[in-house]
Amino acid sequence: MNEETIPRVNRVKIGDRNLWREYGLLVERFKPLDLGQGHPDFIPNIAKEALLEVANSSDSSIHQYSISNGHPRLLNALSKLYSTLLKRTIDPNTELLSTMGANEALYCAILGLIEDGDEVVVIEPFFDLYVPLIKMAGGTPRFVTLKKSCTGSPNTSADWILDPYALENAFNEKTKAVIMNTPINPLGKIFEIAELQKITDLCRKWNAVCISDEVYEWMVYKPREHVRIATFPGMWERTLTIGSGGKSFCITGWKVGWVYGPDKLMNHLKVIHQMAVYAGSTPLQEAVAIMLEKEIELLGTPESFFHKMQENLKKNRDYVVDVLRRHNFLPVVPDSGIFLIANWSNLESKLNINVKNGDYKDVGFTKWLIESIGLHGMPSTMFYNKENRNEMENFVRFCFIKDHETLEILPKILDKLQLHCT
Amino acid sequence: MNEETIPRVNRVKIGDRNLWREYGLLVERFKPLDLGQGHPDFIPNIAKEALLEVANSSDSSIHQYSISNGHPRLLNALSKLYSTLLKRTIDPNTELLSTMGANEALYCAILGLIEDGDEVVVIEPFFDLYVPLIKMAGGTPRFVTLKKSCTGSPNTSADWILDPYALENAFNEKTKAVIMNTPINPLGKIFEIAELQKITDLCRKWNAVCISDEVYEWMVYKPREHVRIATFPGMWERTLTIGSGGKSFCITGWKVGWVYGPDKLMNHLKVIHQMAVYAGSTPLQEAVAIMLEKEIELLGTPESFFHKMQENLKKNRDYVVDVLRRHNFLPVVPDSGIFLIANWSNLESKLNINVKNGDYKDVGFTKWLIESIGLHGMPSTMFYNKENRNEMENFVRFCFIKDHETLEILPKILDKLQLHCT
Ligand SMILES: Cc1ncc(COP(=O)(O)O)c(C=O)c1O
Ligand SMILES: Cc1ncc(COP(=O)(O)O)c(C=O)c1O
Repeated sequence: MNEETIPRVNRVKIGDRNLWREYGLLVERFKPLDLGQGHPDFIPNIAKEALLEVANSSDSSIHQYSISNGHPRLLNALSKLYSTLLKRTIDPNTELLSTMGANEALYCAILGLIEDGDEVVVIEPFFDLYVPLIKMAGGTPRFVTLKKSCTGSPNTSADWILDPYALENAFNEKTKAVIMNTPINPLGKIFEIAELQKITDLCRKWNAVCISDEVYEWMVYKPREHVRIATFPGMWERTLTIGSGGKSFCITGWKVGWVYGPDKLMNHLKVIHQMAVYAGSTPLQEAVAIMLEKEIELLGTPESFFHKMQENLKKNRDYVVDVLRRHNFLPVVPDSGIFLIANWSNLESKLNINVKNGDYKDVGFTKWLIESIGLHGMPSTMFYNKENRNEMENFVRFCFIKDHETLEILPKILDKLQLHCT
Repeated sequence: MNEETIPRVNRVKIGDRNLWREYGLLVERFKPLDLGQGHPDFIPNIAKEALLEVANSSDSSIHQYSISNGHPRLLNALSKLYSTLLKRTIDPNTELLSTMGANEALYCAILGLIEDGDEVVVIEPFFDLYVPLIKMAGGTPRFVTLKKSCTGSPNTSADWILDPYALENAFNEKTKAVIMNTPINPLGKIFEIAELQKITDLCRKWNAVCISDEVYEWMVYKPREHVRIATFPGMWERTLTIGSGGKSFCITGWKVGWVYGPDKLMNHLKVIHQMAVYAGSTPLQEAVAIMLEKEIELLGTPESFFHKMQENLKKNRDYVVDVLRRHNFLPVVPDSGIFLIANWSNLESKLNINVKNGDYKDVGFTKWLIESIGLHGMPSTMFYNKENRNEMENFVRFCFIKDHETLEILPKILDKLQLHCT
């Protein structure tokens, strides 16, 4: 081109989440213990077996285009699963869409429904993708921040609550949708019935769509349980619920996700999906269908993969919480999910951390952790909008969906902190 | 929702390509011989073996998120392949992006570069996705139609030529890009050097980007050869070339595609890709990498998969051309690709076809074919914009990348036409 660089169109300016890329490069360079991005370091047998079954199948059609909405075997399995869980019949042809991970489901939901002038209520902290998508669609995010109630220690994710008045103030006639994530990344909080009821009331009052990102639905530690807002009276017809095969079966690289909801909303998403990718990958949809079919039979029994997974996660959580406490972090103990955030302010005064100009303190800290002791966590400010980042600079996020041998490296690495303390 | 249906945002109105869905439903209902959508009805051994290798691998990281740009093994294989073919070093980290099929590569290219007020020159016929994408991005398509030169029969795809004056007239200071497809679907024409040179001259004159959709690059029948416009002087720095693992290896359902070009353009695409899907599926990228590594060793030899594929396709083409001629169609013999178009006007007067109000004649004919004799082809008008559809109503598109046993059903089905002739 004649110019050195060509001008960036607006949606590219909006969408540039270069922090993920920056950390990716650091990880490649320093090869730290990776408790950063939310993916396991193992593959479960159920997934390996399903993929082998697909690879050995003599049916060549599972290697060609599926219909745009999704591979029928997967849509049928999802329909069976969620029809049971939601106690209503979910039509695989009209009320389900198979997507390239929950990521593409979010993309289709937001691009399919939001346009110039719309407002979207975003519950904070939020998965950092939501905001650029809302802006790219022409919408304006309105943030409602979970507040820490002062119950004293020990800190748990249930201490962070949704303020009903703040929520009420965020809705108005321009509100097209609310987007929430339960269990919520990075806190690991499960929304309480009363909180979901408040969201319900406001969605109904203002005729807003609820986009419920439930990718961690199977990672809720007993005795707590996952509650789906689509089951609240009057909510099915206005809720899009998003799930992830990658998260549910510990195979984030497969990128098989989905979204379900009423036909009249799903219609819009399908058009965006058809334009962006046309269809998901058929063999991996087939493999996820095989796994779901098995799980449906075992649901609620101790043999269920989902059951075993939450048991393992709970053990990992307890282990990591303990290790962090012994190393002067104050973790917020999560009720669910694969992450926890931990306050590192007790370390701050003792460590000599250079924060790059313009970076938040937690960004400086997490980069220092990678470079100096070989540990990768994510800064928690990236889950907040600019106005609220200062309050979160003392928190770092760690992912604990890892093999136990991996987590056992953590105390050894954290022991190195002492060498750096002044 | 309070309303019966919620209003469709503009990008949903633009993107609704419901013809594909309509035919999909017809196919499900009538189960015709499927020469409609462009996918094989077999899976090659090379693909089956690669998938088995992945399924049996003990490396769990190939089941988790790849970096957003693509799985390194795939990017490295693509870099090796295209560096050789283009005779320049293509940097896997900056000049390549792995996408969910060529479809998502097109999406990222157009959404990443085009904005309100931009014009995009579209060579017609065109893959029907291009136009909604351009409009969704805020751009305006300017069509340049390939014209049939009157060389008399037999008709071949080389008779359809790019008029240099029409092309020149389509460019102006608003032109941000030109989008072309060589080999071109549905014609099967390979653009001639002189035609590519004319496109090159105009792109350089008007400082426009060239989006070159080359998904059928390996389906060029000997002795003809595929020519990449990115190799023309001054073109690398302004060209985005799009390829498809799904098309190249007869596994359309895997949805592994790619795009390569200069860093300063690729940058923009990567942002859209990260928002829409984040990354492609790692295990299938790994499997495509395995296949490419094998092919790179065999390139240009008779053992090469690509070589055998084009030989088979050429045989299929000759067979289908012959069958169609014997049944009163006038096929346009393609030099490349997996499709041909055939003129059916000799049949028109003899058949009693009811064309639904508002449908083009070829839409009526192809629906009639499905319902009455069980044969699925696509209407060719869908590859044209409204103004030019009337000229193409007498053509139907057939896909011939099928097992020979499948194609042998064609004459038997076409024999049934006689029963309907009046
Ligand atoms: C809250 C949330 N939603 C969606 C996603 C994306 O899920 P997927 O990998 O299925 O695209 C993530 C991934 O980390 C997430 O944390
Ligand atoms: C010209 C052209 N480009 C792109 C595509 C999409 O390719 P993929 O299946 O890799 O997404 C097609 C599919 O038919 C096509 O014909």
